[in-house]
Amino acid sequence: MADTPYKSAVIVGVGAGLSASLARSFTKAGLKVALAARRAGDLAPLAKEVGGKAFACDATKPAEIARLLADAEAAFGAIDVVVYNASYRTRGPFVDLVPAEVEKSLIVSAFAGFLVAQEAVKRMLPRKHGAVFFTGASASVKGYAQSAPFAMGKFALRGLAQSMARELQPQGIHVAHIVIDGGIRSAARPDPADKPDSLLDPDAIAQSYLQLLQQQRSAWAWEIELRPWVERF
Amino acid sequence: MADTPYKSAVIVGVGAGLSASLARSFTKAGLKVALAARRAGDLAPLAKEVGGKAFACDATKPAEIARLLADAEAAFGAIDVVVYNASYRTRGPFVDLVPAEVEKSLIVSAFAGFLVAQEAVKRMLPRKHGAVFFTGASASVKGYAQSAPFAMGKFALRGLAQSMARELQPQGIHVAHIVIDGGIRSAARPDPADKPDSLLDPDAIAQSYLQLLQQQRSAWAWEIELRPWVERF
Amino acid sequence: MADTPYKSAVIVGVGAGLSASLARSFTKAGLKVALAARRAGDLAPLAKEVGGKAFACDATKPAEIARLLADAEAAFGAIDVVVYNASYRTRGPFVDLVPAEVEKSLIVSAFAGFLVAQEAVKRMLPRKHGAVFFTGASASVKGYAQSAPFAMGKFALRGLAQSMARELQPQGIHVAHIVIDGGIRSAARPDPADKPDSLLDPDAIAQSYLQLLQQQRSAWAWEIELRPWVERF
Amino acid sequence: MADTPYKSAVIVGVGAGLSASLARSFTKAGLKVALAARRAGDLAPLAKEVGGKAFACDATKPAEIARLLADAEAAFGAIDVVVYNASYRTRGPFVDLVPAEVEKSLIVSAFAGFLVAQEAVKRMLPRKHGAVFFTGASASVKGYAQSAPFAMGKFALRGLAQSMARELQPQGIHVAHIVIDGGIRSAARPDPADKPDSLLDPDAIAQSYLQLLQQQRSAWAWEIELRPWVERF
Repeated sequence: MADTPYKSAVIVGVGAGLSASLARSFTKAGLKVALAARRAGDLAPLAKEVGGKAFACDATKPAEIARLLADAEAAFGAIDVVVYNASYRTRGPFVDLVPAEVEKSLIVSAFAGFLVAQEAVKRMLPRKHGAVFFTGASASVKGYAQSAPFAMGKFALRGLAQSMARELQPQGIHVAHIVIDGGIRSAARPDPADKPDSLLDPDAIAQSYLQLLQQQRSAWAWEIELRPWVERF
Repeated sequence: MADTPYKSAVIVGVGAGLSASLARSFTKAGLKVALAARRAGDLAPLAKEVGGKAFACDATKPAEIARLLADAEAAFGAIDVVVYNASYRTRGPFVDLVPAEVEKSLIVSAFAGFLVAQEAVKRMLPRKHGAVFFTGASASVKGYAQSAPFAMGKFALRGLAQSMARELQPQGIHVAHIVIDGGIRSAARPDPADKPDSLLDPDAIAQSYLQLLQQQRSAWAWEIELRPWVERF
Repeated sequence: MADTPYKSAVIVGVGAGLSASLARSFTKAGLKVALAARRAGDLAPLAKEVGGKAFACDATKPAEIARLLADAEAAFGAIDVVVYNASYRTRGPFVDLVPAEVEKSLIVSAFAGFLVAQEAVKRMLPRKHGAVFFTGASASVKGYAQSAPFAMGKFALRGLAQSMARELQPQGIHVAHIVIDGGIRSAARPDPADKPDSLLDPDAIAQSYLQLLQQQRSAWAWEIELRPWVERF
Repeated sequence: MADTPYKSAVIVGVGAGLSASLARSFTKAGLKVALAARRAGDLAPLAKEVGGKAFACDATKPAEIARLLADAEAAFGAIDVVVYNASYRTRGPFVDLVPAEVEKSLIVSAFAGFLVAQEAVKRMLPRKHGAVFFTGASASVKGYAQSAPFAMGKFALRGLAQSMARELQPQGIHVAHIVIDGGIRSAARPDPADKPDSLLDPDAIAQSYLQLLQQQRSAWAWEIELRPWVERF
């Protein structure tokens, strides 16, 4: 019952259980799903569950991304959806931040997002069809104290997404940036008993990604902010 | 096939054909729909088509709004969705603007939105359930030259929506502000032949309103911007 | 020692002691200052202190504004600076807000700002010289719970200022919107003893207004946010 | 005639002539000025003119920054102002961007800004006194087509500045981000004859930096946008 024009997705990064929900949601909507992370083994059960494939890929390395996309297309045909869902953060008092960790925040959260997006767009552009989605966070639009590195990485990713939207949407590629403003629920981090739905259900998030894929090009959103009903903002 | 928790909607204002698309979309999703505008007669054919009802209502008058909501609830039971889709604009060189027209822009575009929202929330709050959506425009987030009155009205409406979201979402009422950034397609204003989908299809917009109604409370959006794929921003 | 190109200012509204600081600051910088509020008597001592004049003016009434500007120009010559510093707010649970008070918030905080600005610009535009400044608040950019009316008024005023900036700056009129994000210190509301400078000193705010007047047209700011060093944001 | 509480500044980067204007402006206000760039020789005449010092420093290398700050403090005493004014950009169609150049944009425009700021703050924090300013661009708040790398770098720098402001301002360090929205005038790039002041005069920009240094802590701005009167935005 695919009610989107899309066929095959690559999801990069594991992101607090969100990738699993995305994989299930996209699969239900009729898409083939390739999952990529540095350790493919972690993804194998999920890939099996959804009838997809798991790939090992260090997204900071252009050659590995190129191989990932090539392998995914070999398996599923043209990839027309790519979700970048990886990030890295370090935090603490500003003067105590370790420069190498700060650099890694920028590289994993933003530069690798560029690398993945560029490789994807190279394949989508000749077909004038595709969607590239980026997972943002509260830190994408607000730089918190003691968290400059994550703000740097996530602000940069948002700048990438906005620039891509301006350039590529008129060429048929839907670019979206989803701001997840709150904690994501997981087995390890359930809702507090007295605060139901105070953490974002990853399935609920995935539903919004799918809704964005269902949008028609005359009315695309390039950004949406999702937060729990009780979250302060 | 209602996949939302909502039963009955009131749509206020005619808004460039958008109300018609919302009425059809909500009806298909299983909601009962009441349509309201200053002249109910204009809405009669649409009301008949969707099996809803048309009501006359001047949304700048509290008593008329109270009666509208009472009549709609008498017809359909508890109203749990209200969309405010009315606005008024005047434009021209700043020094030539007519003060009474500027005031009317503020009153119709923003104050009447407050009146409708307040009456709706009075009914929703005891049930801790409902959705109040506001239709915004490019002018909601950008004040254009020679268009101060519309900017004033639409900025104010956005301030209303954001304040309501902070206060009422934790009480179970989903508040959303949809920024329509572009022209809306209509019979009178079709897409240019060489620029397909360069105007927003009102059905595509309505789909996004419905998607917002489908969101689960752990991952609500309070705002989304919709624009054609080729629109400059 | 006027280091600005401006000669005479009208300051409308009393605004938490800010008008007094503006009057003193502008006077020191060599400007003549007219002060306007609904009750001129309240302003008489300040007018005397700074060698300016106090005028009674209800800024929601176009005729009174026209007379204010005419009287001020009769007294001081061409008025080339106008500061709109008035607002009205009501607050409380959304369902308890009194519609007439909400309307008054919009009218005083935004519509009267338009009226004053329009009358000022009518006089400035033929000279292609002038400055119109608006005093904003935290609520100009963030709609707080239980404070929708102030958000509506202040968002609207910001929309007005932004639209005017786009239209009028290329015609020689500097339009600025100053966001005061925090409480303003006064005799009645001093800094807490253990939190020095945690409230905005009105003289410090006035200094920023004067600095904006000193900006050269090749590098104008249309907006600036001021907040105490320890304020959360 | 220093009317700021500051004594000694380090300016990093050459930035379209802006550093020269900053050096002159700060010197006139009574500050000692150290200039740093990869090639110190380029700065020697300017350093001589303002009675300051020029230092060679590759701001992407922590050790060089540490030495720069140590040398500057040896020459002038405690450094209490640091301006980060360096950036790197590459542009072109998204699919043609060279990854190494994109990475360099992020590293020079944002990561090096972090390195300089951290080294500065380590010295300022024990004194609970100082100012760290960052030079932004239109791209800091708007991601343009064919310019993703600069958007990534400048968005990231803004995230850094905002996070630092939230953390460090309550500790006495004024953090500001100045958005330069337009071209900067220079000998090589004069105003078009028919469009006076349509490029930002670097002296006018420098005046705003100095005004920010003059702000009192009860009313600090963390961000200001500067653009020519005739610039579209």
